[in-house]
Amino acid sequence: MSSSIHNSPTVAFLGLGLISGSLAGALKHAGWDGDLIAWGPRLPSLEKGRDLGLVDVISLDLDEVLSRADVVVIGAPPVATAALLSEVLSKAPQCGEPVVTDMASIKGFIVDAAYPSYRKFVPGHPIAGSENSGVESSRPDLFVGREVILTPVSDTDPEAVRIVEGLWSAAGARLTCMSIDDHDAALAASSHVPHMVAYALTAMLGSHPLSPMKHGGGALRDMTRIAGSDPVMWRDIALTNRDAVLEAMDAFSAEHEKLRALIAEGDGDGLERLFAECRVLRREHDAILNPMLDENGVSP
Amino acid sequence: MSSSIHNSPTVAFLGLGLISGSLAGALKHAGWDGDLIAWGPRLPSLEKGRDLGLVDVISLDLDEVLSRADVVVIGAPPVATAALLSEVLSKAPQCGEPVVTDMASIKGFIVDAAYPSYRKFVPGHPIAGSENSGVESSRPDLFVGREVILTPVSDTDPEAVRIVEGLWSAAGARLTCMSIDDHDAALAASSHVPHMVAYALTAMLGSHPLSPMKHGGGALRDMTRIAGSDPVMWRDIALTNRDAVLEAMDAFSAEHEKLRALIAEGDGDGLERLFAECRVLRREHDAILNPMLDENGVSP
Repeated sequence: MSSSIHNSPTVAFLGLGLISGSLAGALKHAGWDGDLIAWGPRLPSLEKGRDLGLVDVISLDLDEVLSRADVVVIGAPPVATAALLSEVLSKAPQCGEPVVTDMASIKGFIVDAAYPSYRKFVPGHPIAGSENSGVESSRPDLFVGREVILTPVSDTDPEAVRIVEGLWSAAGARLTCMSIDDHDAALAASSHVPHMVAYALTAMLGSHPLSPMKHGGGALRDMTRIAGSDPVMWRDIALTNRDAVLEAMDAFSAEHEKLRALIAEGDGDGLERLFAECRVLRREHDAILNPMLDENGVSP
Repeated sequence: MSSSIHNSPTVAFLGLGLISGSLAGALKHAGWDGDLIAWGPRLPSLEKGRDLGLVDVISLDLDEVLSRADVVVIGAPPVATAALLSEVLSKAPQCGEPVVTDMASIKGFIVDAAYPSYRKFVPGHPIAGSENSGVESSRPDLFVGREVILTPVSDTDPEAVRIVEGLWSAAGARLTCMSIDDHDAALAASSHVPHMVAYALTAMLGSHPLSPMKHGGGALRDMTRIAGSDPVMWRDIALTNRDAVLEAMDAFSAEHEKLRALIAEGDGDGLERLFAECRVLRREHDAILNPMLDENGVSP
């Protein structure tokens, strides 16, 4: 147990789902000794989170929670995050000026919605998730070795950034800072478009006359797993990062067409070369993509 | 230990890699008491297989191995399988008439190459694999709960089919029979095109100016895992199942374009509906795609 997490801040989670529940569980696991509070519009998931031992206190009173918290973590799909953020930022100056952060998968749309301006707001995005949703799917090891990207702007309070970094470090994550534009473009390619590809693949399989999904193995398991993700979350991401997503979808389509042409032309050497390059590229990123890979090369 | 595997046949594996090594290991694990023999063109992987305890006997002499075996299992990429199969079938009648089966991911091309005609040849395909190759990556549980598709034709010896089924049942697999054309069309959609999609996605990420693969999480881990697969194997599959692969790639592209249009038009309801349908479809196939899912929903 690290000494740095004693006398740790009181953290309030606004919205208690898979990601915030996992962060709360990770903090508990690390011995965080500040109170963990959950606020949300509905009691059942808050009660579930308390019963699972993830948070200490639950409340339906936003003003009370904001006043009590040192750090406020908003956990909701992008559109709901933007709406809640705006309410929180308008109240924060009268509620003891807590540090505020969010965890949405897209940052430009969120920062545009972050009004009134507030120096203690630190936009954030943990690169971790699951096709399962709900606080009951929380895993305290969800962030171990995973990247958390922060996108502070020039007038963001550096001390607020430090506090948010402390939260994620305690959960076992690696911290990176990035510009908002770079974040949204890189994540369109590394996360948003892979989800769109999984959806398109699943839709193709669903409309195929031979029901090929019945004949899938480990490859299809992995290539369609994230098509089970939360539909509202991914609708929001696709629409709020629209331009970057469309650009990366087009770049993907161009590669798919190139590959199609190699197959149609029967270019065996070209195919083998492309596949070998992809193998090298994928293996170079094994440690990033599989931070918890065990000694048998099996990821959890 | 099942009684049906006592007095079990002597099995010869021609080519000892991930799949044949895993089958050998699974038979050992099930208490198979017939000899397991490995033949291959090169000694090192045969020796590795013997040292790992997967096979009892190794040999570089094909005629001797064929004469000794009750069942011959060819384990090689499609083009090599076809070449080897032709040699084996021409020798089998003079070598004690063993049952012969293969494990290639595509069946039309293999059956076309199965000359001279031989009633004890049973075309087969286990729907299991790994992005790793080589006998050292073998896993005796690779086939547990996984489908093995056999595509016998009208004059295939039913007793030979029964013997090949016994082999795979001992390894924990589920057996299915299917026509050759249905196999190649269904597998183009459920396995071959998912691989092409993973390759196209990896190629897109590799040529992106922001190196987005550095910012990947569990979604990207899964969506690119199979881009690490054996380049020669997948070159062969793409070319030997070309028409079915191109057709399924086009069906995939059509779904990708439909999804692109929904995003470009900002059709939130359409996106949410499509994503929700995909979630249902994926979850309906969880038991097939995740046969070894543990109680926490984590697949090994």
